[in-house]
Amino acid sequence: MPIMLNRHSSVPLYRQLVNALREDIVSGALAANYKLPPERELAERLGVNRATVLQAYQQLKSEGLIASHVGRGTFVCASDDRQGGAPPWQILFSDYSNRFTYHDIAAADQAQRAPNAIDFATGSQNPADIPDDLLRDVSIRAFESADFHGTQESPIEGFPQLRELLADHMTRRGVRCDADNVMVLSGAEQGLDLCVRAFVNPGDCVLVEQSTFFPALQAFRSADARVIGVPIDEHGMRTDLLDGYCKRFHPKLIFTIPTFQNPSGATMPLHRRRELVETAMRYQCLVIEDDPYGELCYGERLAEGPTDALASGKPRRPRELTPLKGMENAGYVIYLSTFSKTVTPGLRTGWLVADSHVIARIAALRRMIDQHTSSSSQLICMELLSSGRIGRHIGRLCEIYGHRRDLMLDALHRYAPEGMRWNTPLGGYYLWARLPDGLRAARLLDDARHAGVTFMPGDMFAVDEDDSSHIRLNFVRPDSRQIEPGIRLLCDTIAETEQSADGHGGER
Amino acid sequence: MPIMLNRHSSVPLYRQLVNALREDIVSGALAANYKLPPERELAERLGVNRATVLQAYQQLKSEGLIASHVGRGTFVCASDDRQGGAPPWQILFSDYSNRFTYHDIAAADQAQRAPNAIDFATGSQNPADIPDDLLRDVSIRAFESADFHGTQESPIEGFPQLRELLADHMTRRGVRCDADNVMVLSGAEQGLDLCVRAFVNPGDCVLVEQSTFFPALQAFRSADARVIGVPIDEHGMRTDLLDGYCKRFHPKLIFTIPTFQNPSGATMPLHRRRELVETAMRYQCLVIEDDPYGELCYGERLAEGPTDALASGKPRRPRELTPLKGMENAGYVIYLSTFSKTVTPGLRTGWLVADSHVIARIAALRRMIDQHTSSSSQLICMELLSSGRIGRHIGRLCEIYGHRRDLMLDALHRYAPEGMRWNTPLGGYYLWARLPDGLRAARLLDDARHAGVTFMPGDMFAVDEDDSSHIRLNFVRPDSRQIEPGIRLLCDTIAETEQSADGHGGER
Repeated sequence: MPIMLNRHSSVPLYRQLVNALREDIVSGALAANYKLPPERELAERLGVNRATVLQAYQQLKSEGLIASHVGRGTFVCASDDRQGGAPPWQILFSDYSNRFTYHDIAAADQAQRAPNAIDFATGSQNPADIPDDLLRDVSIRAFESADFHGTQESPIEGFPQLRELLADHMTRRGVRCDADNVMVLSGAEQGLDLCVRAFVNPGDCVLVEQSTFFPALQAFRSADARVIGVPIDEHGMRTDLLDGYCKRFHPKLIFTIPTFQNPSGATMPLHRRRELVETAMRYQCLVIEDDPYGELCYGERLAEGPTDALASGKPRRPRELTPLKGMENAGYVIYLSTFSKTVTPGLRTGWLVADSHVIARIAALRRMIDQHTSSSSQLICMELLSSGRIGRHIGRLCEIYGHRRDLMLDALHRYAPEGMRWNTPLGGYYLWARLPDGLRAARLLDDARHAGVTFMPGDMFAVDEDDSSHIRLNFVRPDSRQIEPGIRLLCDTIAETEQSADGHGGER
Repeated sequence: MPIMLNRHSSVPLYRQLVNALREDIVSGALAANYKLPPERELAERLGVNRATVLQAYQQLKSEGLIASHVGRGTFVCASDDRQGGAPPWQILFSDYSNRFTYHDIAAADQAQRAPNAIDFATGSQNPADIPDDLLRDVSIRAFESADFHGTQESPIEGFPQLRELLADHMTRRGVRCDADNVMVLSGAEQGLDLCVRAFVNPGDCVLVEQSTFFPALQAFRSADARVIGVPIDEHGMRTDLLDGYCKRFHPKLIFTIPTFQNPSGATMPLHRRRELVETAMRYQCLVIEDDPYGELCYGERLAEGPTDALASGKPRRPRELTPLKGMENAGYVIYLSTFSKTVTPGLRTGWLVADSHVIARIAALRRMIDQHTSSSSQLICMELLSSGRIGRHIGRLCEIYGHRRDLMLDALHRYAPEGMRWNTPLGGYYLWARLPDGLRAARLLDDARHAGVTFMPGDMFAVDEDDSSHIRLNFVRPDSRQIEPGIRLLCDTIAETEQSADGHGGER
């Protein structure tokens, strides 16, 4: 910015300065957002009075060429600051992105955003349960290791060592597979998105559990799929009906959470698993098995507190059920899991187990998307698995979470009003409760939030129609001490809301 | 697996064992992939001869119910191992994923896969230049810090502190912005994918530089966009033609790499930048500014070695040009950058600067995709930026890479056959050379790979038609000592290929 002022000219100095600066701004020699020197500094540099610079700056401001921001200085305005005119966003956004049903997300946020309430709503761990010390220790150990490669580029499918470790891990869980069949993902949800992109054409039919993980519904619907809900009961998807659904709808995909389902907490028994896989194969339909919770297995509860259902009187050792993926090798099942629910969502690391055709197709897509999962996250997961520390961590988590599950069951047994029903989840995060007849979950949520407790209304997860009679309770999210008072508060609110609905002639 | 053998039965023990195991397998009590005990172990457990178990296993194998894998053991077969019948993949894959033009990727792989060749082809850094020690140090420091949150969940848009640091970083580079306008990405390519999903409807027109980053072409084309190339010259996109293209094609997006373009190495001067932004705004067309290389700025070369173009005789201090995003505030420009080219691709961390409407829309999409960028990667980038060490690292990289650029220019000057032309890139990774008339890049590549040097043929990047007359040379990828011999080898190969083409009457 070499500005030359002529002290012998008849043009006032401030005006010369304005002209010089304006020319530089309009020609682009001074780019938009260029920070001009402070008045005092420029005055000294040019050997003029500070008032001269002040006057020049004021003139340029009045012309809309520069602007001052308190505490930050004076900047050259971009040309459109003068022209105005924002982009016509609503015209520019794609149909695809418009298909996202924002009100669902807003409803979920609404349920979760109740700062001082006891939180049975949010679908993730209590941040206090994220094993910070373990992760810090594992991370530092991983980064200090001699063959450090936590920030080196990884193959699209993930570091070979991590794929190997995950293949071992899955083989121990009953899914015999090689490292070649494993792809490291940036979370299980990414796997779902990639499967939608790899398989779903507009109009394709996708079968899902009647109540299911709602981001999956979003993902299928935004791809213009036809999403059909298959009825569920306390043992998960009604696979006895599946043949009929396949015959009628010719689905391309079945999306299922067979173990500790979200939101219902239900677990499909072995014969249903076999029936599902065999039916899918008969109709040449792929199965996406989402299994974020499978390792969080608490078994049936101890019998001292009676529950409505499964209490057999004897404690049984929890036994993990074989994933669907372990029941076939032809390639029909695509298995997804994640470290998000057992370790922390912050790692953004999950994995997929599938036929090599699927791996190859998805790798081709990822090459244009995110290349591979963060190397540092992969390195941390490698250390977690290879050191065996993840197993001990999950074991401890199962004790804590199983206990919280029992606390919730006990509290429900003690406080639940007549007509309320619930299941005994054998693992995972969620208990699924049916409200007394005539009570609507959304209405209850408003009252409950005011009372200081929150949950997720069943409507959030329903595929076809409203499911206002169910609520999802996350028993792992709150602190153990909050469960009994939280359930008590919820049950009191249910009783009150029922009464007031009765009084008003109700919303039945 | 409680197997009871009856020693007093007339049924041979091995047959009893077969029956018991078969029943368990067919009923599902032994799930597919269940690992059977080793023969010796089972024999001991049952108190029978090892030969008995061996015979039983052999029978079950012959029935296809179990299978042994050397060194791994004996497993229950999944039922479809018997039925056969893989999914009909070609029917199942989506049209979208079929639109990916695999041969382009294969061609790129082909160019890069020449193990002992001097590599001017691959579009990334030399792994030896990735600052392992710096990253290890920064990572450990970050993970050891008192407010460790590298594995905690992050907001979708990224950790507030990182967004703040990136906003400061961009403000210093001439893009005045707040943290609210910054989103942390899992690499810049993810930003491109997200923009396609947020904005592109099938049939929408996208303008790009005539030769451009080919994954961008893939991303646009897979979304069924109409991609039109705008001519380029040594100063980048011919913005004087842009009004005509906008009038004719009504583009929704202009995708551009204005600084150290890939593949041409060209940098758009200020007046073209202004013209581009103003034209886009006039036609209410969004601009995606991809800027992975902008900070790798070497300036013009020292004048001792003459080059074909810009040598002005005087070394100038390299000056970074203001990004397009710095030239408007209405929201038309969406800016993408990344740590992949300056630090390491392994971090999978990039960022986007855009209007709040764009941030909100893209956050809604990411909620269904990958939630947020790996917290550990974010933490590492925060430490890199806040400690100021990234600035020193990039400064050093500019010295090394500028030197390699000069080495390549010198070698070309010395060895290039008549009729070959090239530019003097002012930064980035790439030099763009025009082959002598009549020589085809793809043909040359075969010969060059045999000779021991590799490059990327121009066709890879061409939008509309083949561009077989240009080649892209990455001068940062090889070791400094490889550049002179590599260029010499390449130039010799060009001369030979030319001669043989002449001899054959050629492919002109």
